[in-house]
Amino acid sequence: MTRLTARRAARRSAGSGGAPPQAPWRPLRNPYRPIDVLSADQVEFIHESSLDVLERLGMDFWSPAALDRLARAGLAVDRAGQHVRFDRHWIMEQVAKAPPEFTIRARHAGRSIVLGGNHVNFSGVGGPPNCSDLDGGRRPGSFKDFCDLVRLEQSLNALHLVGSQPVAPIDLPAEMRHLDVYRAFVTLTDKIWSPSALGRERIDDGIEMMCLATGLDRPGLAATPMLIANINTNSPLRVDGPMLDGAVAMVEAGQPLIVTPFTLAGAMSPVSLAGALTQQNAEALAVIAYLQLVKPGAPVIYGGFTSNVDMRSGAPAFGTPEYARATLAGGQMARRYRLPYRSSNTNAANTVDAQAAYESEMSIWAAVMGHANLVYHATGWLEGGLVASFEKMVIDAEMLQMMAAFLEPIVVDRESVAIDAMEEVGPGGHFFGAAHTMARYETAFYQPLVSDWRNFQSWQEAGARSATERAHAIAKALLKAYEPPPLDPARLEAIDAFVARRKGEIAKAA
Amino acid sequence: MTRLTARRAARRSAGSGGAPPQAPWRPLRNPYRPIDVLSADQVEFIHESSLDVLERLGMDFWSPAALDRLARAGLAVDRAGQHVRFDRHWIMEQVAKAPPEFTIRARHAGRSIVLGGNHVNFSGVGGPPNCSDLDGGRRPGSFKDFCDLVRLEQSLNALHLVGSQPVAPIDLPAEMRHLDVYRAFVTLTDKIWSPSALGRERIDDGIEMMCLATGLDRPGLAATPMLIANINTNSPLRVDGPMLDGAVAMVEAGQPLIVTPFTLAGAMSPVSLAGALTQQNAEALAVIAYLQLVKPGAPVIYGGFTSNVDMRSGAPAFGTPEYARATLAGGQMARRYRLPYRSSNTNAANTVDAQAAYESEMSIWAAVMGHANLVYHATGWLEGGLVASFEKMVIDAEMLQMMAAFLEPIVVDRESVAIDAMEEVGPGGHFFGAAHTMARYETAFYQPLVSDWRNFQSWQEAGARSATERAHAIAKALLKAYEPPPLDPARLEAIDAFVARRKGEIAKAA
Repeated sequence: MTRLTARRAARRSAGSGGAPPQAPWRPLRNPYRPIDVLSADQVEFIHESSLDVLERLGMDFWSPAALDRLARAGLAVDRAGQHVRFDRHWIMEQVAKAPPEFTIRARHAGRSIVLGGNHVNFSGVGGPPNCSDLDGGRRPGSFKDFCDLVRLEQSLNALHLVGSQPVAPIDLPAEMRHLDVYRAFVTLTDKIWSPSALGRERIDDGIEMMCLATGLDRPGLAATPMLIANINTNSPLRVDGPMLDGAVAMVEAGQPLIVTPFTLAGAMSPVSLAGALTQQNAEALAVIAYLQLVKPGAPVIYGGFTSNVDMRSGAPAFGTPEYARATLAGGQMARRYRLPYRSSNTNAANTVDAQAAYESEMSIWAAVMGHANLVYHATGWLEGGLVASFEKMVIDAEMLQMMAAFLEPIVVDRESVAIDAMEEVGPGGHFFGAAHTMARYETAFYQPLVSDWRNFQSWQEAGARSATERAHAIAKALLKAYEPPPLDPARLEAIDAFVARRKGEIAKAA
Repeated sequence: MTRLTARRAARRSAGSGGAPPQAPWRPLRNPYRPIDVLSADQVEFIHESSLDVLERLGMDFWSPAALDRLARAGLAVDRAGQHVRFDRHWIMEQVAKAPPEFTIRARHAGRSIVLGGNHVNFSGVGGPPNCSDLDGGRRPGSFKDFCDLVRLEQSLNALHLVGSQPVAPIDLPAEMRHLDVYRAFVTLTDKIWSPSALGRERIDDGIEMMCLATGLDRPGLAATPMLIANINTNSPLRVDGPMLDGAVAMVEAGQPLIVTPFTLAGAMSPVSLAGALTQQNAEALAVIAYLQLVKPGAPVIYGGFTSNVDMRSGAPAFGTPEYARATLAGGQMARRYRLPYRSSNTNAANTVDAQAAYESEMSIWAAVMGHANLVYHATGWLEGGLVASFEKMVIDAEMLQMMAAFLEPIVVDRESVAIDAMEEVGPGGHFFGAAHTMARYETAFYQPLVSDWRNFQSWQEAGARSATERAHAIAKALLKAYEPPPLDPARLEAIDAFVARRKGEIAKAA
């Protein structure tokens, strides 16, 4: 087989099931300087202001255990009010203990990720109560849809990790649903996944099931982290008990945790971007400092989620100019503390149309050029996070693939500058047949997943399908071609036994 | 009238005719550092390589007048082959004469623009043979459609200039069509417009009509330029006679000219980005150097249009990762010579869908973050430039407005950081009613033109319209509310007499 035929064969196989070939899963780094929207002075002003907030106003920490720990550390704790005021020097001392960069290992060793520096990782949508596709329309999430979305996330090479919960399987009982969810993650994907940080129990179950899936014990898993979870603050200036307990369970188990304040400007934070960013920074630093008190050196990620509400309707807006600037500014703040940074791919569209795409691109460009190390909700998010869309998932994968190709540095050397090719072709000539072209054309350019570049007539004859309709067909083809990753049957048996036992315990406790 | 009611009234009037209010026309500057995709060494390598191309290979200049001028300047001219080899020092001496920044005055004094530095200007689509809207479908351009598109470009505040020819009015005779086109520009818009640089005659007619419209004579117009035109090279390494003649007519009349090589990698330039950029740079420098020989200090713009073709179909692709990197690299090359930079908002979609939006956003981000001073085809371009779409025009205006808002620096000071507001609201509270919010909420955030941020139920009850359908309604409302800018009836009479006379001359000559 010639090199060329081999390449073609590889493409065909990659595109099996009727889906177009994708770029391979690969680690990404952003070689370009981040876009700074704040001056160095402005970064320091926000930094100092957020420490003022923590000293003067403090925060609610709704966890007696946390209040005890913080009191023992010498902070001003009001136990009745569940409130803490933080000394600025203590905050900075604690935050300085967090590592600037760390690795999370995937079950598929080739799909491990690095968070920090100029590494970029994309993870799928997490948390929507509903899902939607062109066949079934908009509907509450079911376990079947959940599993299909996980299969799709496993199939999309643009995603480094799967989402924390692509859709809520609301047909399963809420108090034991997480066990089915984790079992699905373990069996349907070999990418890194996230347990739910809503209380200690859900984290502990996730740790236990990951140990069973990998054959590691808890110290082994702590030594080579394989999970990641996210908590949100209850902005303004409050963090609830289950979130704190879940976060503590994660860091005690040596697993990385993202701390993401939920600062929608005008609603949960000041209407001014500087105010929202100051509050975001205060909340993130306080929780991160607390987690460093719990376990010095724990791997944590600074999360930014500052957007704004539509002041006429109160509806949250995403992918806006404010969102893009806050995302870039958030990256500057995270780098100020040498912390890995998490952002998101967001939009507020109600259908997978031009708005969904342009709001998402605003988010993606800002996240990537803000040097976000982890871009949450990178595929599938619609309606401000209320819906996981199958079609949007594929269109987002295209946008992520494009961004990944954009991050490949241009090669500039004698061969690529190709003066000989210009000489061969001559003025007014054509490069299609030039030797330089023939040697490179198969891999020279980005190959699209969804984009249709045919001329109007060919496109019309092929059914005049929109990008959303093409994405629908691709999602179906990927699901048809999906194959689960290998898992030792003995390990699966142990997991099933664990799930059965835990369900029994939970049912009994209820 | 309270301040708040006055603001609301202003909004209503701005949104007359049923169209949502727009952000006002305003000059833009990009306060952020450009994204550099090339290292300083790579810029120099491309620079030196492009001078090698001009020395070793040279270029076809298909104009006897140009060949004479270049021979007199001491360059190696092959008159029979219509070919020139350029000395690298001569090129750099000439290019250095071009001004780094200049102003173009609009008939509406408030709509003058600056090209150079970190100024950003958007102009409408130019050149498509077809147009399209949801009512009338895809059709060859007519003079009626041409006029409607100019009216729309006049109405969209996001556009600083109108496009060079939003659609070709192919129902008018080709040899005198430009006279009707210029008359339409003069009567339908007070934004800066472009005469066609296809030969000297068409430029001279444009200059004459602009003089009649403004009351200026030719020296007066030369002293305060009010027109701009673009020429493309016939890549590779060739520029035709009419383009050269038109370009010379522009610079002799003191009007700014854009030189844009047409370097689609793999077709009209090497398949490698570095090769395409080297050729783009060589062609742009050669033509700019020639124009500086014609008129030292003539205001010129370095145009970049490097994209790639789909190597499977030969179709041009736009808004790709290659396009985005080439756009950013082109900005670095232009800045290397202290020349204003022109880029474009492009896409290859066949309909106004998610692909049209994400390819356009790739182009817009790259253009703006590459510090393009002039973004051509910024609204309305579809199908790789074969169609001017009414709906795309409105959706692009939204994306441009968003980018304009993104370029507004974040205010960071005591008031905007708003610690007092956080204190007022308290942990777990809500900022909707806070004094800080009430004082700012009306102007705090970007107001969308097309985006619909309502929740799914409200959106569904309102007709479940896609962004493209909403854009259609907005285009119609803007056309309904359109009013032509004032023009002295005596001047219009003179223009009409000129058009009649010129049409007679052209008919007689045919």
